[in-house]
Order: sequence, then structure tokens, then C-alpha cells
Amino acid sequence: MTDLEIYDTTLRDGSQGEGVNLSLADKLALTQALDWAGMAYIEGGWPGSNPKDEEYFAQVQGLGLATAKVAAFGSTRHHRNEPAQDANLQKLVAAKADVITIFGKTWDLHVTEALRVRLEDNLAMISSSVAWLREASGRPVFYDAEHFFDGFRANRAYALDTLQAAHEAGALRLVLCDTNGGSLPGQVAEAVAAVRARLPGAVLGIHVHNDGGLAVANTLAAVAAGCVQVQGTINGVGERCGNVDLTTVIANAELKLGRRCLPAGRIERLTELSRLVWERINLAPPANQPYVGRAAFAHKGGIHVSAVQRNSTTYEHVRPEQVGNTRRILISELSGRANVQAKLASRYPQLKDADVVKAVLDEVVAKENAGYSYEAAEASFDLLVRRQVGAWKPSFQLHHYRIHGLGTPGSQVDLVEAAVKVTVGEQTRLCAAEGHGPVDALAHALHECLRPAWPQLKDLQLIDYKVRVVDSADGTAAKVRVLIESHWHGRSIGTVGVSENIIEASWLALVESIEAALQEEPCGTLNG
Amino acid sequence: MTDLEIYDTTLRDGSQGEGVNLSLADKLALTQALDWAGMAYIEGGWPGSNPKDEEYFAQVQGLGLATAKVAAFGSTRHHRNEPAQDANLQKLVAAKADVITIFGKTWDLHVTEALRVRLEDNLAMISSSVAWLREASGRPVFYDAEHFFDGFRANRAYALDTLQAAHEAGALRLVLCDTNGGSLPGQVAEAVAAVRARLPGAVLGIHVHNDGGLAVANTLAAVAAGCVQVQGTINGVGERCGNVDLTTVIANAELKLGRRCLPAGRIERLTELSRLVWERINLAPPANQPYVGRAAFAHKGGIHVSAVQRNSTTYEHVRPEQVGNTRRILISELSGRANVQAKLASRYPQLKDADVVKAVLDEVVAKENAGYSYEAAEASFDLLVRRQVGAWKPSFQLHHYRIHGLGTPGSQVDLVEAAVKVTVGEQTRLCAAEGHGPVDALAHALHECLRPAWPQLKDLQLIDYKVRVVDSADGTAAKVRVLIESHWHGRSIGTVGVSENIIEASWLALVESIEAALQEEPCGTLNG
Repeated sequence: MTDLEIYDTTLRDGSQGEGVNLSLADKLALTQALDWAGMAYIEGGWPGSNPKDEEYFAQVQGLGLATAKVAAFGSTRHHRNEPAQDANLQKLVAAKADVITIFGKTWDLHVTEALRVRLEDNLAMISSSVAWLREASGRPVFYDAEHFFDGFRANRAYALDTLQAAHEAGALRLVLCDTNGGSLPGQVAEAVAAVRARLPGAVLGIHVHNDGGLAVANTLAAVAAGCVQVQGTINGVGERCGNVDLTTVIANAELKLGRRCLPAGRIERLTELSRLVWERINLAPPANQPYVGRAAFAHKGGIHVSAVQRNSTTYEHVRPEQVGNTRRILISELSGRANVQAKLASRYPQLKDADVVKAVLDEVVAKENAGYSYEAAEASFDLLVRRQVGAWKPSFQLHHYRIHGLGTPGSQVDLVEAAVKVTVGEQTRLCAAEGHGPVDALAHALHECLRPAWPQLKDLQLIDYKVRVVDSADGTAAKVRVLIESHWHGRSIGTVGVSENIIEASWLALVESIEAALQEEPCGTLNG
Repeated sequence: MTDLEIYDTTLRDGSQGEGVNLSLADKLALTQALDWAGMAYIEGGWPGSNPKDEEYFAQVQGLGLATAKVAAFGSTRHHRNEPAQDANLQKLVAAKADVITIFGKTWDLHVTEALRVRLEDNLAMISSSVAWLREASGRPVFYDAEHFFDGFRANRAYALDTLQAAHEAGALRLVLCDTNGGSLPGQVAEAVAAVRARLPGAVLGIHVHNDGGLAVANTLAAVAAGCVQVQGTINGVGERCGNVDLTTVIANAELKLGRRCLPAGRIERLTELSRLVWERINLAPPANQPYVGRAAFAHKGGIHVSAVQRNSTTYEHVRPEQVGNTRRILISELSGRANVQAKLASRYPQLKDADVVKAVLDEVVAKENAGYSYEAAEASFDLLVRRQVGAWKPSFQLHHYRIHGLGTPGSQVDLVEAAVKVTVGEQTRLCAAEGHGPVDALAHALHECLRPAWPQLKDLQLIDYKVRVVDSADGTAAKVRVLIESHWHGRSIGTVGVSENIIEASWLALVESIEAALQEEPCGTLNG
């Protein structure tokens, strides 16, 4: 048994977010992941709104979920319909989900402006919809009070009347929604207390949006005031500024407030769940996401790094492993030697020779002064270390590369030609290739040269290419830093090159990505 | 006079964020933007940590800031030094900033574990550092109590002793820091109240990080408990999960709590400031950022859209214009058209012909679908309009350009050669030039060709060059967007080019910057 009841609406309210488009297959895969992570309820969709959601409810029954119950979402009946004649309510029953959740209007402004019905008609719509759904489906019915907090501020008595109507009709949960996301924690606490005073027997939930950047705080304030169900989405996806991020709420509630949200042992799955959701909705994960972000336990400042190595509580509010995340040490100009030393120690534990360590540090500092940055280029960092400890020999020898570009007005694509001359072992090859731009052309020509010696390079996939002007004050003569990310047999290879010439910077990063892939031994076995 | 005192540390603590690397030019430009937006204090850097920050303090004095005071940041003296002999303290005085901010240790664990000194020695370090800095600089000294809230929980008496030491030595602000970012709002409120009880005469500040997703709530809790200085960063950039986002705090405090943070009329600049900071640090803005994000007032759900059009308060917690943002309707590309229409109306009020307006809209939509973005390229937008209304004739005719690049190992700089053939009026010229990279070479060759016809082009100064990969999934064959900013007789010219070939994209932006400079009549006089 958990203390709080987590109700995930990533698949329904989350899909209102900009850029979020989930296929049926996505929704089914995410349902399994949410179940694996231990959610109590998964709101799967709105069967009245589109055929995809109806199909979802048909197929979800075959998944054999272990812990989660599935909820179908909808609204109160249309004001002109009897419940039994309302097509939307009928579809909610037909979905055969474990529970049914409907929302209704709380805010008098919405009743008169948006629904355009009398206030008492709205109460009847709530009451009869809840009662009929319970009766017709035999399932528990949850009631979402849309705009509860705005409604409470505008017309407190009426807002509470709507909740009472749902409660008396048998709704098993009354969920208080901050639909516009603009409430403050004190307002939330006060309103929840007022509901408890009016309806002491009701079981309450909270559903908030993040328009004021206070969604997590508002949720925790509601929980402190007595709400037991927490609605939200994984990663806080959702319309406008999003719903509350359940990963943050769960971590705070379990690790800081001692309120169990998930079955035992599941909280360590939060980071993996978060990344899986980002992947499925095809949005780039923000590095700074609390608890589960790539940077949530990344240390850059030199003072921080040396302290965190001695005692992790000095600069970490929880241990990263508690939520399945990991600590990272970033290398940068601010980091000073302590960071480089820490990174060396974690990647090359056997490297003890003080002279070698000093040589590596000096080289990193010199490179960073020249515009390099190793934060996202671990493979280049490894090659730098290998060079310093004498554990690197170049896989091939470059004689030169040449670029020929021709631009003519009106031509749709101006291909660039590159020629590369390299020696591998005894053999010297000169290869040419075309490409979309100089970097693409060089990559093709170089691969062409190296293919006979290393056919396995065909698996080296360039997946990201970033260009950053390091010092933009010099205009077109400014230095550029190129970051390349490649995939190679299941691992990610990040490399960097810097030059005033973008072709040269790209070439350097490109060559390092190939060199890194061709290093046979793992870095940890080096001796220095 | 404002109620709260906003202390921006984007340039200092913000630059601890992953991927944040600010050049000296970036820091100076951001300082001017922060001043324009109305910040009370700008923490510019740590003069003891690197030469770039020292140079910043030398140059910032020439900017003539209107509202902001500049702060230099550092730490208490080393435990073995007298203050007057401490190189870091000396550099703080030498920076000649308006105020000096130093941090010291509050948490007993850090004093013994990280500093490795006795608890009483730390008190002496705080006290003597503050006193000496006041004396030697004649400037106000602010004191940042690092880890205050963790320290308060671990050893309340000692944490308060450290504040008292700083207060009695004359620190003008005592800033309570949630360095690890893991505190809860109730803990913050309790600790601030305890400080006020102990030191009723002290003026307090708050500085929090967002590791628990509660930075905004913690800041507001501290303000409610009596803190008057609010430290944070624009967009919440900063180490790990970032500092508190000042844009959210300022909007909440001004619009919801009635606490003035900025001079009158400045809050409408928040959205522009936010986007400028994202641009300078070259990170993609998160669409769902509260108040200032692209999606903060974006409506997707059909019910929401029709309601919001009748009455904006139905689904918006504040009006977007209050923070300089705009409402977006995501139902179709028609929303994009509304923006373009708004932009056209503001720049070309005389343009009434519906067919012309439609043609411009169609062209902008087509270009944006192809990867163009006109937010930072108004000159390219103007040229687009001129073409549609027939008010543009090309100043010159390109026949072709050629690029020759040669890369050889070991050579420090590999110059690129460019040749450009153009016709101006009756004359056709073929000119060649060298450059640092293809873009630089093309710029030189093109200027060479055009100089006889337009000698005034020598004043066209290319001052910024930015490259962004539009769709990074295709690796080196991805589309790139090049933005060029030039200065021309006191005005700024922003242009954009897009292609899979970075040379071509740069060429397009380059040509438009010259075309824009050569258009004689200002855009507002066009007739369409």
C-alpha cells in the first residue's frame, strides 16, 4: 500500500502539449512502462474524442498490467441530453476501463460563458452523469473539478456546491484542478482545507498545471492539506507550460516527506521511465530536469567537485542512485584541476603517476584556452589522455584533404567535392566523394579511404553535428567549435574540433570519432 | 523604488550551467540587456578565477549602465592569509565594481570537511574578510551564506553565528543560499524567520537552486518571510538543475503578489530578455517555460481555443502582453499567419493590398517550413517583403562562387581560397581572396568585387556569425541555418540563410546583408 495514489495522465492531458503526438503503439508501450514503474492509475485517453483512443481501450485489456489500473476520461453529459442518451457517456462505459474519470465545470464564469447554461443546470449535469456512469458501468467514478481554484476564488459557495453534487452522486475521488496553472501554494492550501471542512467524508485529489512555475509546490501543498490522489504527467509534458512533473513530485514525496507513492523499489526506475517518455514523444530531454535530468547531478565548479568527491552530501541533496540517475563530472574552464583529476580518477583509476596527471591537466587547460570544451566530448578527452600516457598510435596518416565547392544561382543543391589522401599501414589511398556541404563530403571521402582496412566502420553512425562560434566578435573569422556525436556498437562517441576554419574544425572532430571507434582496449586498462 | 531588489547572477552562477560558455563580448552584451530590462544588480564574474572576468570588470565601466549596479563575486579569505595579503580579496578590490559579494561557509560539515578548519576560524575568516573589503574598497559588501539551509538544519546555532559574524562586520545584505537546491518551502520560511528573530536589523536576501523543482516556491516563501533581495538567473540557467528563474519570480511577484521588482514598464521586456539570453548562450529555449516560453500562451485543445477567444481569462492566468509574450493558437498554420500579419502591420502600416499581404504570408510560411527563422533576421524579412511588392532589384548578379580548401596536418592555419564572379551594372568582375574558413574567404572576395561600385561597403562590419543545425537527425547532411549580424552606419542588419551546405547557407546570409545595406529607401515608405 502506498500513502499517495499516483494518477498518470501523460497519455491524455500530456498529449495536449505542443509537439506531443502519440501513436497507438506509443500509447500501449508507454502504458507498459508506466505499469513497470509502479503507477497506481494510467489515464489512457478520451474514448469520445477520437477512434485511436477507442482502439487503445480495446487493446489495453490484453496487456496484463501488474499494478496499474486504467482510467477512461470524458466530460459530464451535454446539457440537453439524458445521461443514458449521451454518446460521450456511452463510450466511457463501452471502453470497459477499470475506472472512469469525468470532468465538470466549477467556475461560474465557465458555466455561463463557455457552457452557456444556468448554474443549477450544471449541478444537475454533474450529479446525473456521475450517478449514471456508476450504475451503467459498475466501475468507480472519479470527478475532476475543472478550474476548481479559479472558481473557488471567484465564487466559493458555488465551487463547493459542484463538489458536493459529485460527492453525493457517489464520485469516489474529488480531484481539484488548477487548470490555468496560476495558483499560489497558499491559495491551494486554503482551498483544500475549505473542501475538507465542507465534505469531511470525501477523498480528494490534486491536478495542477505549471504556468506560474509552482506546479510541484502546489501539489505538495495540496498533499500537506490532505489530498491523497496526485495527478500529473511524466516529465511535466502538457499544454502551455505543462502539467506537474510526476517524477519530481514522487521523488520529493518519497525522499523528503516520507510519503510512499510507488511500490517498494520502484523509485529507482524514475530516471529510466523519464528518458523513455522523452524518447517516445520525440522531444529532447532538458538536461536540468530535477532528479532525472542528465545534469541533475553534474558538477562543474572546481570547489564543488573536490568537495563532492570527499562527501557527496556536500553538494547533492539526495544520492543520484536513489532515483536511478548518475553523478557526472564536467570538464570546463571553470572547473579547475580538481574536475579533471576527478574525471581522470573515475575513468582511469589505475593512473597514479603524478607527472602524467599533470601533463594531462596542462593539456586540457591549454586546449580549453584555445576554445575546446570536453563537456560533451568524452571520446576526445579519452584520446587526449591516451596521447599523454603514450597509449595511442594514430590509426592512419593524413597527407592532405582538399575541398572544391561551386555555388551557382538557382541550382537547388550545390554538392561539394572532397578529396582525402591517407596512408593506412603500408597503403596510401586518395579518395574523392561528393556531399551536402564540405563536412558531409569529407566524411564520405575519408570513409571511402578507410573502408578496406576497417570494414566495420560502416556501423559508425554520425547522429548529431553541432556548430558553435566560440568568440563571435571576429565575425566570419571567428573560431568555431564543432561537436560530433556518433553511435558505434551501442555506445555514444562524442568528439570536438576547434578552428577558425569550419572545415578544419569539422575534420578534427570527424577524425577523432573514427580514432575513438578504432581504439580496441577500453580506457580503464591503460597504464600511465 | 522597487519593493524587491533583483540581483542577477546569470553571468556568474549561471555560467556554471552545463553547456554555458560566455565570451567576454557575450558578457558585455548581456550586461547591457540586463540593465535595459531593469535589474538592480548584475553579478558580472569572479575576478580571482580567470583573466576573462578581470577584463570584464575593466570594460564594464565604459558601458554607462542606466539602472544596474555591477557586483564582483569572490569568497572569504584563505584561512592562512591575512585579508590584506589574500590575492582573491585584493582582486575583488581591484575590480572596482559597485558592490562586492563574497560567500562563506555556514554548514559545519563544510567547514570541517571541505575547508578543514576549526569552526571558530571560519567565523574569523568571514568577519575579517567582510571588514577588510569594506575598508579597502569603500564599497558596500554583500554576504552570501553558502549552504545556509542545510547548515541551519544540521547545526542551527552555528549557522546563525556565521550570519552574525558577517552582519557585525558590516555586510549590507545577508543572502541565504540553498546551494544544494533541496529545501522545501516550509523549511525556508522557518529558517528565514529564525534569522530575523536573531538579527532583527539585518537586510536579507535569498538565493536558491532548483534541484527539487521548488526554486520559485522557495524564493516566494523567503520573500513572504521577509527577504528583500532576490538572487537568480535569467531562464534559470545554472549548475545541475539551475538557479531560480528570475523571469518566473519577477512575473509572479509583480503580477500576483503586487511586489514591484523592476522599474515601471520593464516587466514587458521579460520575454525579449529571456530569448536574448537563450540566443547568447546558444541553448534552445524550452517552449514550456512559464510566462516567457513560446508555448506559455499556446492553445491546442479545441475547447480551450474557442473559449479563450471569447474571454482570455478562461484559460490564461495572466495576459501574455503583460510580460511581452503573445498568444498562439496551435490548431493550424493559420496561427503562424497571425504572427506574420501582426509583424507586417507594425513594419509596413501602409501595406493594404490583400493579395500582396497574402503573397508575403505564403512566402514566409514556405520559408519557415524550409528551416528559415526571421526572429533575428529582420533585414532578410524586409528583403522578402520588397521582393513580393516588386520594390526590389538585385544590386548585382552572381555567376558563381568557388571554394578551394586544403588541409595538411601540422599547419597552424589552413587558409581557404574563394573566387567570386559577379556583374554590377555593365561590369563583370572575377575576384579571389583568402580567408580563415570558407565564409571569411567568400566575404573578402565578394567585397573585392563590389568595392569599385560601392566604396561605402567598407563600412559594413560583420559582427556576429551564428550557425545552428536545424534538423540534427541527419548528421553531417543536416540542414544548417546561418545568422549574420552586421553593423552599417549605426544600425544593425540581421540576415539568415538556410541550406544543407554550410557554405551555401553562409553565402545566402552574406549576400542579403550586402543587399540590405544597399537598399536606399527605408522600408516604411514602400507601397504595396
